[in-house]
Amino acid sequence: MDAIDKLTEIFKDFPGIGERQAKRFVYFLISKNGSYADNLAKLVLDLKKEIAQCESCFHFFVIRNAKSKVCEICSNPHADSSMLMVVEKDSDLESMKNSRIYQGKYFILGGLVPIVEKTTKKRIRIEELKQKIKNSKDEIKEIILAFSLSPQGDHTDSYVRDELKEVAKDIKISSLGRGLSTGTELEYSDNETLKNALNNRH
Amino acid sequence: MDAIDKLTEIFKDFPGIGERQAKRFVYFLISKNGSYADNLAKLVLDLKKEIAQCESCFHFFVIRNAKSKVCEICSNPHADSSMLMVVEKDSDLESMKNSRIYQGKYFILGGLVPIVEKTTKKRIRIEELKQKIKNSKDEIKEIILAFSLSPQGDHTDSYVRDELKEVAKDIKISSLGRGLSTGTELEYSDNETLKNALNNRH
Amino acid sequence: MDAIDKLTEIFKDFPGIGERQAKRFVYFLISKNGSYADNLAKLVLDLKKEIAQCESCFHFFVIRNAKSKVCEICSNPHADSSMLMVVEKDSDLESMKNSRIYQGKYFILGGLVPIVEKTTKKRIRIEELKQKIKNSKDEIKEIILAFSLSPQGDHTDSYVRDELKEVAKDIKISSLGRGLSTGTELEYSDNETLKNALNNRH
Amino acid sequence: MDAIDKLTEIFKDFPGIGERQAKRFVYFLISKNGSYADNLAKLVLDLKKEIAQCESCFHFFVIRNAKSKVCEICSNPHADSSMLMVVEKDSDLESMKNSRIYQGKYFILGGLVPIVEKTTKKRIRIEELKQKIKNSKDEIKEIILAFSLSPQGDHTDSYVRDELKEVAKDIKISSLGRGLSTGTELEYSDNETLKNALNNRH
Repeated sequence: MDAIDKLTEIFKDFPGIGERQAKRFVYFLISKNGSYADNLAKLVLDLKKEIAQCESCFHFFVIRNAKSKVCEICSNPHADSSMLMVVEKDSDLESMKNSRIYQGKYFILGGLVPIVEKTTKKRIRIEELKQKIKNSKDEIKEIILAFSLSPQGDHTDSYVRDELKEVAKDIKISSLGRGLSTGTELEYSDNETLKNALNNRH
Repeated sequence: MDAIDKLTEIFKDFPGIGERQAKRFVYFLISKNGSYADNLAKLVLDLKKEIAQCESCFHFFVIRNAKSKVCEICSNPHADSSMLMVVEKDSDLESMKNSRIYQGKYFILGGLVPIVEKTTKKRIRIEELKQKIKNSKDEIKEIILAFSLSPQGDHTDSYVRDELKEVAKDIKISSLGRGLSTGTELEYSDNETLKNALNNRH
Repeated sequence: MDAIDKLTEIFKDFPGIGERQAKRFVYFLISKNGSYADNLAKLVLDLKKEIAQCESCFHFFVIRNAKSKVCEICSNPHADSSMLMVVEKDSDLESMKNSRIYQGKYFILGGLVPIVEKTTKKRIRIEELKQKIKNSKDEIKEIILAFSLSPQGDHTDSYVRDELKEVAKDIKISSLGRGLSTGTELEYSDNETLKNALNNRH
Repeated sequence: MDAIDKLTEIFKDFPGIGERQAKRFVYFLISKNGSYADNLAKLVLDLKKEIAQCESCFHFFVIRNAKSKVCEICSNPHADSSMLMVVEKDSDLESMKNSRIYQGKYFILGGLVPIVEKTTKKRIRIEELKQKIKNSKDEIKEIILAFSLSPQGDHTDSYVRDELKEVAKDIKISSLGRGLSTGTELEYSDNETLKNALNNRH
């Protein structure tokens, strides 16, 4: 395998990229001048140097202070420590953060729980979540389970609620509301969505 | 214009059909034997004979009893007369009915209210809705405004609430719940949906 | 089944239409006034009365003269009788006719020959084609096989060439040219297209 | 801008990649371990070191012999030097090469000629092409112009033919054949394709 083939293989791993587009990426890089490739390589290497995983919420964050081991949200004195939102992954946190509607803290679970799964604990950070809750018991007043609305998201919601029963027994555990979302047309809605919309009418 | 062209023009009016598909429909009919066309023509004519518009909720319904002027829901003694769901159109009612989660009555408004619109009253059945509410004041306990989640749906919700203020002043008026709908992924959600999901958490 | 269900079933047969859209068609018809349905029914019935299948080329055509049993192309004295283009279906003829690049006659084969098929003769008009060629032997100088470029189209081309060997032995048999078609990008072309484009370079 | 934002900007430049997917690429890289990023960075840097632009045909090629300044096709003694195919870009050459139907040499023009364009010469390698033809006049018997079938491709074909008139006056200049390409259905073909298919029938 030559450099073109090897790099094509790497790009094929990228989310949503097939062989043809991977190869176009390589030719795109070839067509650019040397400083472009240098810059890309440098930024890829910098990424690992400049990014750390928060010890408190497991969010990847840009290191701004070499001594800091927690992310900008966990270390933000203005964030609302009484609320902890548990999300599946970094991009869910980003999406919620960008909407500017939530001012509390987060915890990245690191995945959803497959419906048939025996080795769950090894794959999601349920023990780390329990530990975090134990450590901040006096602060946290509400834990919001914020998973995508899918069978796996639902299953994860139940699993986490069950696991937290003991450790979070004096804390309110809530889940995101359900119903019509932007663009939902009644005519084309599934029964589940209609049921949630009707039950949660206000 | 010959028969092919004229029929193509008609099919072009059908929802979602362009000229090319309209023409394919015509050739499809030509390719079928005579009894197929006879049957289609007969059913199209029957439709008008067998369908009536309910005098009470304005839903189109299949006439089963020549004397009946109201649809099978309005005349159903087991339907819950204390709830009235106001929807935009027949297919919204069908969708809700098929989900079997709602047992109340309906009212077909006949359209949404465009955000900039002066002649609204002529186009939607707001006067008919007021009249219906006046007539069944003692029965109705809740009016559910069930419009699609779009700027126009929201605008219609406000408009109808405003118009009903007087006539429905002792009746609860609710709107469908909002939040995550089936398949919603947090990562790709718009701010409005995230906000509704957070506000309506349970 | 009521009228709505029956008509939905009919529309589901239309090319490219599923259950949901079929039902939307029915509600669309219901929402229109009575004269719209009358007009549609009338045109559907007229279609069969106004359309005949040409006895010479098997094209469906609009009857303009009650005595005529052949279509406007077969009866056109200005059409070039020395060329006979064999196509699969009416819409292929329409497409070719609308392009105004061919002035000869046509023959509608009525289908393609599936690659594995034993009862072919019953389904396509190969005997009728042979008969037509026999009848106009002195006129026809070239038979153009004009099938879509697909394995089945290729198979039909071979099959027809083989069947016509005897009856058209003094007539040139040609097939449509192959190569780049409008919009073809070399980068994304399949080998077959590249091969045809290279072999047929000019 | 932090490392995440900067790298997102770079990935946004990649062909076919928008902001959202660019960001997903960055998070994908973050989620991988350090050696993955090291490998990617290394391969990107290697690419420039291992790839050279052929001095003869301007194709980018993997350097296998440090002294070689021409690509593996230009230096292949078995390639047919009597044919020169002029293509727009590297990926067109790759596509043709992978089809294994052409054994001649290539020349990468470096672009197409926009229909309205004054500074064309600066952007495509027309002078380099003329020079190459002058240098190999005794060898080349046919120049094949192989551009995508689009108005710009056609324009480039005419432009190059015109420019080569003088220098290639004893050499045959051909263009790729046109007609039906794989998957073309007559019913949906544009007039231009039908015309080419009819004119190039065989």
